[in-house]
Amino acid sequence: MGYGETDWKAINTIRLLAVDATFKANSGHPGAPMGCAPAAHVLFNKFMTFNPQNPDWLNRDRFVLSNGHGCMLQYALLHLFGYKLSMDDLKAFRTVDSICPGHPEAHDTPGIEVTTGPLGQGFANAVGLAIAQAHTAAVFNKPGYELINNHTFMLFGDGCAMEGIASEAASAAGHLQLGNLIAIYDDNKISIDGDTKCAFTENVSKRFEAYGWHVQYVEKGDDDLDGIEAAIAKAKEVKDKPSMIQLRTTIGFGSLLQGTGGVHGNALKEDDCKQVKKKFGFNPEESFVVPDEVYEMYHKHAAEGASAEQKWNDMFKKYQEEHKELGADLKRRLDPKKPLPEGWEKKLPIYKPTDGAMASRKLSEAVLEAIHEAVPELLSGSADLTGSNNTRWKKAVDFQPPNLGIGDYAGRYLRYGVREHGMAGMMNGMSAYGTIIPAGGTFLNFVSYAAGAVRLSSLSHQRVIYIATHDSIGLGEDGPTHQPIETLTHFRALPNMMVWRPADGNETSAAYYMSLTSHETPSIMALTRQNLPQLENSTVQNGIKGGYTLIEAENADVTLVSTGSEVSICVEAVKKLKEEGITTRVVSMPCTEVFDAQPKEYQLKVLPDGIPAMSVEAMSTYGWEKYSHEQFGLNRFGASGAYKDVYKKFEFTPEGIAKRAKATVDFYKGIKPRSPINRAFQQLL
Amino acid sequence: MGYGETDWKAINTIRLLAVDATFKANSGHPGAPMGCAPAAHVLFNKFMTFNPQNPDWLNRDRFVLSNGHGCMLQYALLHLFGYKLSMDDLKAFRTVDSICPGHPEAHDTPGIEVTTGPLGQGFANAVGLAIAQAHTAAVFNKPGYELINNHTFMLFGDGCAMEGIASEAASAAGHLQLGNLIAIYDDNKISIDGDTKCAFTENVSKRFEAYGWHVQYVEKGDDDLDGIEAAIAKAKEVKDKPSMIQLRTTIGFGSLLQGTGGVHGNALKEDDCKQVKKKFGFNPEESFVVPDEVYEMYHKHAAEGASAEQKWNDMFKKYQEEHKELGADLKRRLDPKKPLPEGWEKKLPIYKPTDGAMASRKLSEAVLEAIHEAVPELLSGSADLTGSNNTRWKKAVDFQPPNLGIGDYAGRYLRYGVREHGMAGMMNGMSAYGTIIPAGGTFLNFVSYAAGAVRLSSLSHQRVIYIATHDSIGLGEDGPTHQPIETLTHFRALPNMMVWRPADGNETSAAYYMSLTSHETPSIMALTRQNLPQLENSTVQNGIKGGYTLIEAENADVTLVSTGSEVSICVEAVKKLKEEGITTRVVSMPCTEVFDAQPKEYQLKVLPDGIPAMSVEAMSTYGWEKYSHEQFGLNRFGASGAYKDVYKKFEFTPEGIAKRAKATVDFYKGIKPRSPINRAFQQLL
Repeated sequence: MGYGETDWKAINTIRLLAVDATFKANSGHPGAPMGCAPAAHVLFNKFMTFNPQNPDWLNRDRFVLSNGHGCMLQYALLHLFGYKLSMDDLKAFRTVDSICPGHPEAHDTPGIEVTTGPLGQGFANAVGLAIAQAHTAAVFNKPGYELINNHTFMLFGDGCAMEGIASEAASAAGHLQLGNLIAIYDDNKISIDGDTKCAFTENVSKRFEAYGWHVQYVEKGDDDLDGIEAAIAKAKEVKDKPSMIQLRTTIGFGSLLQGTGGVHGNALKEDDCKQVKKKFGFNPEESFVVPDEVYEMYHKHAAEGASAEQKWNDMFKKYQEEHKELGADLKRRLDPKKPLPEGWEKKLPIYKPTDGAMASRKLSEAVLEAIHEAVPELLSGSADLTGSNNTRWKKAVDFQPPNLGIGDYAGRYLRYGVREHGMAGMMNGMSAYGTIIPAGGTFLNFVSYAAGAVRLSSLSHQRVIYIATHDSIGLGEDGPTHQPIETLTHFRALPNMMVWRPADGNETSAAYYMSLTSHETPSIMALTRQNLPQLENSTVQNGIKGGYTLIEAENADVTLVSTGSEVSICVEAVKKLKEEGITTRVVSMPCTEVFDAQPKEYQLKVLPDGIPAMSVEAMSTYGWEKYSHEQFGLNRFGASGAYKDVYKKFEFTPEGIAKRAKATVDFYKGIKPRSPINRAFQQLL
Repeated sequence: MGYGETDWKAINTIRLLAVDATFKANSGHPGAPMGCAPAAHVLFNKFMTFNPQNPDWLNRDRFVLSNGHGCMLQYALLHLFGYKLSMDDLKAFRTVDSICPGHPEAHDTPGIEVTTGPLGQGFANAVGLAIAQAHTAAVFNKPGYELINNHTFMLFGDGCAMEGIASEAASAAGHLQLGNLIAIYDDNKISIDGDTKCAFTENVSKRFEAYGWHVQYVEKGDDDLDGIEAAIAKAKEVKDKPSMIQLRTTIGFGSLLQGTGGVHGNALKEDDCKQVKKKFGFNPEESFVVPDEVYEMYHKHAAEGASAEQKWNDMFKKYQEEHKELGADLKRRLDPKKPLPEGWEKKLPIYKPTDGAMASRKLSEAVLEAIHEAVPELLSGSADLTGSNNTRWKKAVDFQPPNLGIGDYAGRYLRYGVREHGMAGMMNGMSAYGTIIPAGGTFLNFVSYAAGAVRLSSLSHQRVIYIATHDSIGLGEDGPTHQPIETLTHFRALPNMMVWRPADGNETSAAYYMSLTSHETPSIMALTRQNLPQLENSTVQNGIKGGYTLIEAENADVTLVSTGSEVSICVEAVKKLKEEGITTRVVSMPCTEVFDAQPKEYQLKVLPDGIPAMSVEAMSTYGWEKYSHEQFGLNRFGASGAYKDVYKKFEFTPEGIAKRAKATVDFYKGIKPRSPINRAFQQLL
């Protein structure tokens, strides 16, 4: 309340910074920042606590711009508040190597919480941040120490509202009664195709009420600052529901094209820039202008945030004295290097070749069972496949609103529902909160449903673990609709993603070791439904190299390179081949990305010059040429039937492998092929 | 109304066929069929018209089982009505090469309309079928000839209701006022994790009302056949809205585990099978039993369907006389070989090297502009990126409910909204209807959002065209969040998918030629934002081979293999290399899948033995080893900036290519490498 001239000057400054930056870049989206500036001004100044000098302060309020194309709004705010984002950075908007890229990227820009732009992702991220907040508060808050009580605020537009991932996350947030989550819906009735009436005429408020959200409507989002403030204040009072405020705004407010699609994704024309500056009382001949009183106002709020952090730090210091164990735990979790508790890795299960055969999904379960106490930041879950993904340790408590009587917010097991994309987006947000390592299960084939969010796990360096069971035609009867063929190829081609496909127990432990300790890289664990024997020579130490020689042989005729469930069949094939006088090496390659990171010398020991290599994996061969000369795989859809029958149909048997290995040996008779590791030039990284 | 003993016998027969088949397979989902049998019995017998002797009859009512895991329900119905699905087929449920696979597959099983199982897909397919029906009716129906008036019925469960793709499609269906669409929600309160209260507590009815659906509730879905009938009848009366009937059922009705997750995805135990048979008045010692009166009842209804088709055929004969042009058009569209109108291909634009440079998204627009009159079954659209995807011909009319005043149902342009996954699922349904070729646009990076449905385009052999613009780092300023790296690799590894990345105008025409004439294969068109010159030696005839020699050279030192926007840079690199005394061939490879289908002799001419080949594509190199010895690409995320700056940063310039080509030549000095086409053995297909 009590808004005055400086407030409007600030709002118009934000609008004009967006106008100037998009004009200079001749690219970008001025419309959303111009429409949302009033709400952002109120939100950041009246409700949000944060310290620009330390963007990582745990209890800061989080802001997510789900309509990430409007990022000039966020960059302008960060600049005004004094984050390390200079006027020159704003001027470099959308130029190569700028910290103001075309859409906000969390990893590179201080103050950006999550990477948004692909629509709907930010919505799910915000739900994840709110989950992480509720969990961290439930675990660490103690009487007299409300260490964690931040809010997550999110702005989303019509595009986000249409995306399925946002629907999934909104439904989950309603179920979870996330009272700390407040979303503002920028209802400007314009999307890229123009008026939303051409495709989007549903009642969004009613839909959110159906999800269990508290819903408000603010008619005059362009000028009713008091109304915006009152709505956010009321939303904060609602503790048992997430809140959505439907805010009617005018896209591109002030532009000659305001209220039209013309101002959504194009810079304003020069004369329009000038008239809008004039309209807002700025000098039409100047660009990138911030009035001193605006800086003052924003810096003052930033200073309040800095002192709030100082108070918090004092409280946390006392907390560490009074609650030694919890205090130490939280302190460790806040270490930027994200170390795990000392000695945790000793809990990882180790297997001997004489141990019984087990499905790798069960081996994964055994890891979770063994380490969940040692790694308290690990939160597991599943998209409604708990019993199939084996993601739940026995004594797990569900993360649930306490009033449902089936768990509490300190619970470490999430029932994501049949919402794969939403799960992945939420996990990205949970990871971004900073105190949690989320792991979530689904069938490998349905990680594809989440591809949009999985890509952002990689791009934004989130330590997220996808537990992807039923990883091949080996799932059997469910058939081709559920049998991945292209999936591992897809994610192996995704930068900064570890795709693990362990062959046995020790490799499964290795996969977890690497996934949990690589704090800037997400992982996909491709796990079997069917049993796998424990292999001779498989060790955690071997597994963490990503690829290693499982069976060495002098003067070998051929190397079999394989992963997961096919490795043990390759071991059987070695015997068949021996009968035919062929000497065979076997390489197990649970993670090509990690193998790629080994020294070349090591790689050449595993895949030496002079010996033809044949890959064996019961799915697409695409990409295996990188590690082998010949490939045995499945470049068609699978079949529904008992696992063994399906493997037999497609000849993934010792005989089928031996036949092709022999063909490979024959093909290379008299040729000493170079190792596929030897290349003419290095790739750009 | 007037249900009697035979009706209940039929319902229990269906239930027990599901019990027996899952018991025999020791796998599958008996719960949903047992719960849904009453509704299915009423729906199929009282409301649906179809002819089991001709599953392709155009005006049949469509049924979609979105909860496809309950497919024994559908297989049982198809068997009882006399489709070509024998009792032996039912007994072969979930065995290799059976026509009763673990989830329903449209391509292989008569009477299955669309391939379902991956949750939510069937929902979107049904919306697509209803769109296609509304469109086909609007185009072909004439006074006295209501040729097309079928309904699409769909059954969906809690899983589908949670999936984002279903939310997207439901919102679109409400907007489109699809009165011919009737969905029954199998509200059994159980998903795999158990009670839906652990993850899914929203108000589904209210949500559907928010989407603009007509919603009803039937409390006693297990026994109130009259209530079910009355609800469906009322839904049919609602012409201006899709209908949803929330039907409370008991999963696994009759089983000792009824109403629990235990009966969702596991066969009943032997004693449970026996008791349920006894309970239903069947002999507990017998299996796969169909009482004669049940066959009679169902065959009678099938016969009514056959005679309905006969009447329709008579009407269509008369129609063809009275409406010659339309009649011939529809007849052609119904030809199982799906021929396009004679001479349509002559409309495809042809370019000379002197023609101006154009972005391939604009070249694609030119194709649509040129052919849309000649190919009336082509329906274009976009997921809210019309102006960026260039998917709309100038005179296009929107497919819209007439009362909105912005189009009509005869319109051939769809505004899908920001709903990529929903769009793809709807397009699969539209294609499955049989009279339409759907093409839909988004950015290539966001085809990944639709991956779950794109996979089913391939698996179910749908002629769907994904117009995927902004296909690389060449999109420039939008940055890494929007720049595909892994995407083409992903879809090239997907069986039965043509991924096209044309280098110029003639290749774009070739891409459309192949996409439109390959009626069992979907396509992705990867198209640039930036301009591309028209290449010497590029012709449609070359393009349709998938890969061809663009620049031949005697005694060449190296072959550059490239696609799309990088081909013309390779052509420039040839000159640079010549300056260094290196003779270079250039191969343009717009579609690897189509190149794979050429005779080996041809492939070896394009990629001959003895010459090292280097691929050039500004994204992941993964998989390019299949066609080249060395690879130049981008195995990291891109950058936000002007297109030329980004290309320069990553060295996709004539100099950058020449440098690596030279390294390749040096690396292979003295070695005459075998062509990557030569392989030790054939892949299984």
